[in-house]
Amino acid sequence: MSLKEKLALKARPINDALEKYLKIREPKKLYKASAHIPLAGGKRLRPVMALITCEMVGGDSKKAIPFAAALETIHNFTLVHDDVMDDDDLRHGVDACHTVYGLSTAILAGDTLFAYAFEMIADSDIEDSIKADLVKNVAYIVRKIAEGQQMDINFEEEETVETKEYLEMIRLKTSILFGAAAYGGAKIGGTTEEEARELEQMATNVGLGFQIWDDYLDATASEEILGKPSGSDIRQGKRTLLVIEALNKADDKERKKLIQILDSENTDEDVREAVKIIDECGALEECHRQANGYLDGARKTLSKYPEGEARELFEELLEYMVTRGH
Amino acid sequence: MSLKEKLALKARPINDALEKYLKIREPKKLYKASAHIPLAGGKRLRPVMALITCEMVGGDSKKAIPFAAALETIHNFTLVHDDVMDDDDLRHGVDACHTVYGLSTAILAGDTLFAYAFEMIADSDIEDSIKADLVKNVAYIVRKIAEGQQMDINFEEEETVETKEYLEMIRLKTSILFGAAAYGGAKIGGTTEEEARELEQMATNVGLGFQIWDDYLDATASEEILGKPSGSDIRQGKRTLLVIEALNKADDKERKKLIQILDSENTDEDVREAVKIIDECGALEECHRQANGYLDGARKTLSKYPEGEARELFEELLEYMVTRGH
Repeated sequence: MSLKEKLALKARPINDALEKYLKIREPKKLYKASAHIPLAGGKRLRPVMALITCEMVGGDSKKAIPFAAALETIHNFTLVHDDVMDDDDLRHGVDACHTVYGLSTAILAGDTLFAYAFEMIADSDIEDSIKADLVKNVAYIVRKIAEGQQMDINFEEEETVETKEYLEMIRLKTSILFGAAAYGGAKIGGTTEEEARELEQMATNVGLGFQIWDDYLDATASEEILGKPSGSDIRQGKRTLLVIEALNKADDKERKKLIQILDSENTDEDVREAVKIIDECGALEECHRQANGYLDGARKTLSKYPEGEARELFEELLEYMVTRGH
Repeated sequence: MSLKEKLALKARPINDALEKYLKIREPKKLYKASAHIPLAGGKRLRPVMALITCEMVGGDSKKAIPFAAALETIHNFTLVHDDVMDDDDLRHGVDACHTVYGLSTAILAGDTLFAYAFEMIADSDIEDSIKADLVKNVAYIVRKIAEGQQMDINFEEEETVETKEYLEMIRLKTSILFGAAAYGGAKIGGTTEEEARELEQMATNVGLGFQIWDDYLDATASEEILGKPSGSDIRQGKRTLLVIEALNKADDKERKKLIQILDSENTDEDVREAVKIIDECGALEECHRQANGYLDGARKTLSKYPEGEARELFEELLEYMVTRGH
C-alpha cells in the first residue's frame, strides 16, 4: 500500500466523524458555511498524527477519533477566520467560506467549528481526567495559534523580520497544533505526562519542518502541485523564511532588487527573478537544511519507540511532510 | 445594602479572576484587544447568577468563580464578534474592539476570549466529571448563540418576522447563556442533573424577560439611562418584539407609516412618531406583559428553594432585570 493509501485509510474514521458532526441543521446558512471548508477535503495530517501517536504508545486509536476530529475542526476554524483576515478567496481548491457566505456568517462558522471541537472532546469515550486535560491543552493551543496569527499580521507592518521571530510565529501559528495532536493521542493511548510531552515536542518540530517546507515549495514547485500559482508568497511580498534568509545572505544589489520586487506590483518575470536571487544566494538551500534539521530530533525520538506499523507510518509521514511536491 | 451594592460585591471575585486571566502578554496588541471590552465594565449578571445559583442549592460559590468568569468571557467574546458583524462602533460606553484594534485583531481577540473560557473551566477546582459536563454544555450553548446571531442576520433580509421566530432568536442569542450560568452554578453546587436543568430553564426564562425588557427600554427610556440615544433600534429599522407586535396590532394606516419610518432615513421626529404608534396600538403594553409573563414561571421555581440570602438575592435580581430603567 502506498503512503497516500495508508493515510487515506487512517483518515476515513476522521472523515466519518466530521460528516456526522457537521451535518446541516437550522439555520442552514450557518451550518453549510461551517461544513464548507472542513468537508472540502484536506489530508487530515493532524488527526492522523493523533491516531498514529496513540497506537505508537500502545493505545486503542478508536478512542482517539473524536479528539482527532476535534483537532481537524480547530484547524479548519483557524483557516476560515484567517481567510477572512487575509481576504484570501481560495482554500483547498474551493472558494473561501467568506467568499461564498459573507463576512458575518464566516466569522460565525469559525466560532461554530471552535465550539464543535470542544463538544467532540467532551463526547470522547475516555476518562474524565484526560478529557479535562485535553480541554485545557487544546484551549491553550488555540490561544497560542491566535498569538501566531497576530504576529504574522504585525510582521506586515514591520520593515524587517528576524529569523528567530519568524520561526516563533510559525511555531505558534502552525506547528504546535501538530504537537497537540501527538500529545492528545499519547495521553488517550495511556502514556505518562512526561512521554506525552516528549512526543508533543517531537511533533511540534515536525510541524516546523512542514511549514518551512511549505514556504520552500511555494517558490519552487509547479502550479499543478501547489493548486495555486507558484511564487504567490513572493507576489504578495510575504516575509517567509526564504525571503528572510535571502535578505540576510544576498549582496546589497540583489537585496535591493528583491525588496523592490516584494514591495511593489510585480510581474511573473519579477517573481522568477526573485526566486533566482533566493536560490543563488543560498537561501533556498539554507531553508531546505533547516526544514530537515527540525526532523533530525524528531527521527531520534521516534527511534526510541518499538518497531511496528505505527512507528513506521509516523516515520513515513514525517519524511513525506518535508519532501512532498518534489 | 442596595441591590447595586450586593451585585457589586458578588461581582468582585469575578472581576478579580478576569483581571488575572486577561493580563497583557505578548503580542500586546492581541491581549490589549482581548481585555478591552471585558475589562470596560458591565454588570456581570451571568456570572453573578451562576454564583447565586450555586449558593441556592447549598454549594460553595468560591468553587464556581472560574466557571462564572468563563461565562462572562464567553459573553464578551460574542459581543466582540457581534460588533464586527454589525459594524457597531460603541460597546459599554467605550469604542468597540474592532474600532480600536481593527477587524483582524478583533476577530482574534474574540477567539482568544473563547479559548480562555475553556482554560478557566479546565482550571476550576471541581470534579473532572463536572468539568467535562460543563465543557460540553458551554460548547453547545456557544454553538446555539451562533445560531441565534445567524437568525438575527437572516431577519434583516426578511420582509416580516413572526413573534415565534423572534422569541426563538433571542432565546438562542441571549437567554440560554443565563440558563447555562444557572445550570453550571447548580452542578458545581452539587445538585442533581434534574434540578440543574430546572434551574437552567428558569434562568433562560429570566433571560427572555430581560431581552424583551431591553427592547422595551430602547423605545421608552431616556438617553441618560440607556447610555445611547433612545429609539436606536427603531432608527436602525430593527424588527424587535415591540415592532413585530405593533405591526400585528396597528391598523393599516399606522402599519404603513411605521414600516415607512423603519425602512427609510428617519429623523428624531419620525422615531417619536413610531414610538407613539407602538404605544397607542397596545404593543408596548403587550411586550411589558410578555416580559413579566416569562418571570412568573421563574418566580414559581425560585419559591421552591429554601428561604435565605441566595434566594432573596436571586428574586431581587430577577425583578431588577425587568424593571431596570423605569
